[in-house]
Amino acid sequence: MNYRRFFGDAIGRLRNERRYRVFADLERDARRFPHATWYPEGASSTTGGARDIVIWCSNDYLAMGQHPAVVAATTAAVQQFGAGAGGTRNISGNNHPLVRLEQELADLHGKEAALAFTSGWISNLAAIGTIAPLLPNCLIISDALNHNSMIEGVKRSGCEKQIFHHNDMSHLEEVLDAAGPARAKLIVFESLYSMDGDIAPVGRIAELAKKYGAMTYVDEVHAVGLYGAHGGGICEREGVMDQIDVIEGTLAKGFGTLGGYIAADEIIIDAVRSYAPSFIFTTALPPAVAAGAHAAVRHLKASGEERQRHQRQVALTKAALTAANLPVMDNPSHIVPVFVGDAELCKTACDMLLERHNIYIQPINYPTVARGTERLRITPTPLHTEAHIAQLVEAMRDIWQRLGLPGKAPRHMTAAGIGTAVAAE
Amino acid sequence: MNYRRFFGDAIGRLRNERRYRVFADLERDARRFPHATWYPEGASSTTGGARDIVIWCSNDYLAMGQHPAVVAATTAAVQQFGAGAGGTRNISGNNHPLVRLEQELADLHGKEAALAFTSGWISNLAAIGTIAPLLPNCLIISDALNHNSMIEGVKRSGCEKQIFHHNDMSHLEEVLDAAGPARAKLIVFESLYSMDGDIAPVGRIAELAKKYGAMTYVDEVHAVGLYGAHGGGICEREGVMDQIDVIEGTLAKGFGTLGGYIAADEIIIDAVRSYAPSFIFTTALPPAVAAGAHAAVRHLKASGEERQRHQRQVALTKAALTAANLPVMDNPSHIVPVFVGDAELCKTACDMLLERHNIYIQPINYPTVARGTERLRITPTPLHTEAHIAQLVEAMRDIWQRLGLPGKAPRHMTAAGIGTAVAAE
Repeated sequence: MNYRRFFGDAIGRLRNERRYRVFADLERDARRFPHATWYPEGASSTTGGARDIVIWCSNDYLAMGQHPAVVAATTAAVQQFGAGAGGTRNISGNNHPLVRLEQELADLHGKEAALAFTSGWISNLAAIGTIAPLLPNCLIISDALNHNSMIEGVKRSGCEKQIFHHNDMSHLEEVLDAAGPARAKLIVFESLYSMDGDIAPVGRIAELAKKYGAMTYVDEVHAVGLYGAHGGGICEREGVMDQIDVIEGTLAKGFGTLGGYIAADEIIIDAVRSYAPSFIFTTALPPAVAAGAHAAVRHLKASGEERQRHQRQVALTKAALTAANLPVMDNPSHIVPVFVGDAELCKTACDMLLERHNIYIQPINYPTVARGTERLRITPTPLHTEAHIAQLVEAMRDIWQRLGLPGKAPRHMTAAGIGTAVAAE
Repeated sequence: MNYRRFFGDAIGRLRNERRYRVFADLERDARRFPHATWYPEGASSTTGGARDIVIWCSNDYLAMGQHPAVVAATTAAVQQFGAGAGGTRNISGNNHPLVRLEQELADLHGKEAALAFTSGWISNLAAIGTIAPLLPNCLIISDALNHNSMIEGVKRSGCEKQIFHHNDMSHLEEVLDAAGPARAKLIVFESLYSMDGDIAPVGRIAELAKKYGAMTYVDEVHAVGLYGAHGGGICEREGVMDQIDVIEGTLAKGFGTLGGYIAADEIIIDAVRSYAPSFIFTTALPPAVAAGAHAAVRHLKASGEERQRHQRQVALTKAALTAANLPVMDNPSHIVPVFVGDAELCKTACDMLLERHNIYIQPINYPTVARGTERLRITPTPLHTEAHIAQLVEAMRDIWQRLGLPGKAPRHMTAAGIGTAVAAE
């Protein structure tokens, strides 16, 4: 049997739908972030052809991956403990820096305990996939725009699920009410949806959960480090961390390193730790990654400087793009989506930004967002200067003019809570 | 509703079955491996109580996590590129050290391409879960003792599966024959089963696959780095790498760092890269982890010294334990299982080894192995000296005597291919 053709067909389908992705080969520079080296196809450090570019779409939102304290802690830990953990958590892989990181994360969220995973994707698969089936006949009540990893956790649980309209509190209440007080219920939602940049009414969700006797599970991956007095996320900012049962976060965005985690009551953490195969059968995070993440969490707990400068640069970027008549899709967060509305043009715009202006922004097309809402997704960091912003605006004006791109997003896409994302990365 | 009690009940069930696990809090020392610091409960670096121990159950089989070349490459990369990747592979997280690592891995296995994941668990989930459903009406033919991550990949695929008896080639042929030539078939198996230490007849599996027109997928996580002239694993040693379609490996055992990977034809890699959500929606491995892994792979490709010394120390350990009448479960690999046959005694023996002799070996109980086959699983590394081995034998004789443990494993458990493992970690 010719198996190759089935894979060829699968790739062909993506190409036909303009969904085939090419990964840009980037080399970050810890001393010059957001500048980086880009290797176009055929280029290499020996044969030449590499180019200096500015990254405008990193999820290292606060540039903590480059922070001297994080780099120093990681370096020291590699030297002292070596490069790997050497085993699963149970079989010799549990390591002291990881244990201390988990204590710090529990403290950050005001919870009894925390558990770290090798990725945020696995955190959601493992936690939702374990917590829900331990509750008899649990109904999972899930926001319509939840991330793929949450959806996979819901599927993996084997529990019945019900979707509520994105951030729609009347609908959520309807679903809760219909389920009845006797049934175990788990509400799963995100605090900040990363493609539209809209924020969930976390306080209201907590209220409804209490009223109807539901457990709550929030994904704060796009908010931890970035919001709240200590970087505890949107729930800290809104003063409701203690009213949410399980807070899931990442170490790979605001905290600049690698891995995901959950924070909750000790008994919940112990159950996930003891029952989730994706946790049990996986090598532990290396001590050096844990030490770096720990340094980032500790730093952002004490310092609000990065958060302030981040918000300031975001506001400046949004204002400058808007002033230049570029169609910023309005929202209350640090995400700066700019409307294009066509897959082919979106890809071309990004290619031209890179080729002509040395600016790297990834096109966001279906299935990451709904067709017709294709966009550029810009993420300013505290290290993007006013000069970077001016250069960005200039470059985008040039491309918008050359391609004849729309100056405005359709009206229903300019307000927060627009809910156009489908499967945010 | 009192949700806490459901989690309490779940933990209670584990305690009743003597399956509740406590993770030893360890601090590795890159300069003194296999020595490490153990923090018993209540101990800390400030209050004291920490103890110097010897690790005898690490999956850092060749101690590459401590190798100067690996530590140096990791350190340099952290300094140069920072601590994290900053995004998914598609959105700014693709990084040059990771691209080069994948090229090196492809070359190691003589394949066109390779793809790295954040863990071996995810490699199997993503690859099996993606490859099988792309083949129309695929039948997955799976070894009875496959690792949990492979089983999860099979489940995730939604495809029909058929289990063949562990390493039983007649049964495999029967299943292949019954499926018929017209049906797409994927055989998934491991090259080296990590709890019993037995090795699959990879050449015979490749032959059967060819005869009956099946695709082949091998998990080499306990073999890459350790076997073959360049560390390509059992398939390299047996000269059949080119006859296996997909080779899955890990960076976290023989290569001492973190992550997993697959190597295969470019079109297969491209399909997994483009279709697997667990890959698409996950932050990329940090450049520093990739650089460290790359250094380990490159070193072990050129140097056979670690592999030779590893095999020598394994042989010495097996011989010394056997000479001391300790019930080594015979097998042809680097795994040294010592039979206990009782969950409680197995746990007690390990606790006493740590408490009385400063030797850390994790008890292997159900569900990792079948009830009645509980064991200590010892993994000598090239850095365990003859003095370490003598100390181990002395300590185990002491514990065996104190607890009145069996001097022999039941007869059917002393030969290779015994197939007692259930869900190897």
